[in-house]
Amino acid sequence: MKVKVLANILGANDRVAEENSRMFKENGVFVINIMSSPGAGKTTLLEKTLAALKDKYRIGVIEGDVATAADAERIEALGVPVVQINTGEMCHLDGSMIREALPEFDLKALDLLIVENVGNLVCPAEFKVGEDHKVMLLSVAEGDDKPKKYPLMFHESSVLIINKTDLLPYTNFDMAKATSDSLGINPRLSIYPVSCRTGEGLDAWYGWLEANLGAR
Amino acid sequence: MKVKVLANILGANDRVAEENSRMFKENGVFVINIMSSPGAGKTTLLEKTLAALKDKYRIGVIEGDVATAADAERIEALGVPVVQINTGEMCHLDGSMIREALPEFDLKALDLLIVENVGNLVCPAEFKVGEDHKVMLLSVAEGDDKPKKYPLMFHESSVLIINKTDLLPYTNFDMAKATSDSLGINPRLSIYPVSCRTGEGLDAWYGWLEANLGAR
Repeated sequence: MKVKVLANILGANDRVAEENSRMFKENGVFVINIMSSPGAGKTTLLEKTLAALKDKYRIGVIEGDVATAADAERIEALGVPVVQINTGEMCHLDGSMIREALPEFDLKALDLLIVENVGNLVCPAEFKVGEDHKVMLLSVAEGDDKPKKYPLMFHESSVLIINKTDLLPYTNFDMAKATSDSLGINPRLSIYPVSCRTGEGLDAWYGWLEANLGAR
Repeated sequence: MKVKVLANILGANDRVAEENSRMFKENGVFVINIMSSPGAGKTTLLEKTLAALKDKYRIGVIEGDVATAADAERIEALGVPVVQINTGEMCHLDGSMIREALPEFDLKALDLLIVENVGNLVCPAEFKVGEDHKVMLLSVAEGDDKPKKYPLMFHESSVLIINKTDLLPYTNFDMAKATSDSLGINPRLSIYPVSCRTGEGLDAWYGWLEANLGAR
């Protein structure tokens, strides 16, 4: 019964996500959906990315969180239009939540919309929001066993950013194992090891984003 | 509608959790439900705790994971009875999953049952499994903003273990802020900063567990 409820919810969500996607395409907006565990560094990656690209592209942000507007306030400080969605008891964003937030933006005036999902390595991967690509972060501090333990998100994502490489000397994280296990689940993954703290590796990620913005 | 479905699911779950709880009490088993983000160190904490206490108490373990039996294999290596539950698409354990696992144990022969939940800082806090206490981990690498951003789990837990204190020198984690924000949400929290890597602080956690086992 529970499985059937879930299937119905997912089917209804897919239809709303498709409508969102059509609206994004009509307005020429490239959309990414950023997902990870809590504390892997989504908002910090976003801050770095906005600082690097906001003078070159018109960017909007939707922040998803269970509670607080703390992340939206961090983004607003950079002078970028941002909408906060508080999900309450829900552990993920879905297509309807994004659709309700869209009137807050002038879509024609955007090149890129970045959706930061709720911190959770499971359910966000099940709910499309109308994005062109899913981008996930894995923090070195979480351990190299995560691809095998949470395979769906690795399977659904186009990009895997392995963050906090500055912590590599202080952990037993095996980059070769994490990379090969991730590619075993999804051979099409683009993988970028980065440190949002030191800035190391971020240029390659910006390169992926700019190539996709150019190809719109 | 979605909210009503959730309310029905939670109500049904509470009844099963109560039955589990009654069964545990009849058999004199003390039960804790360990929760955290992926990679905060639940399984490592469990390995350390079992190594320290398994010769003094009769302990069983239920491992919850979306996929793989990797964690159960780590526990089995310590010679402790363990059952792995793979939840598939579900991001949390619930009362029924635990009930189905119970025939695998001789409850009369256990002092302590430890349930390791799926790595997720949101939903596991909503679903009781029949435990006496919820115990949560927060890793220093996740950041000190997590209590305010994911308040429910901090509110529902009796114990907060702040793990990976060995990473404090390499992060901007503010222990005083994390502690006071957590206590602001739940003044009854027992908070233990530990490093499962170096062993620092673990004795205080074992002390909490032994005091509760003694008071059964």
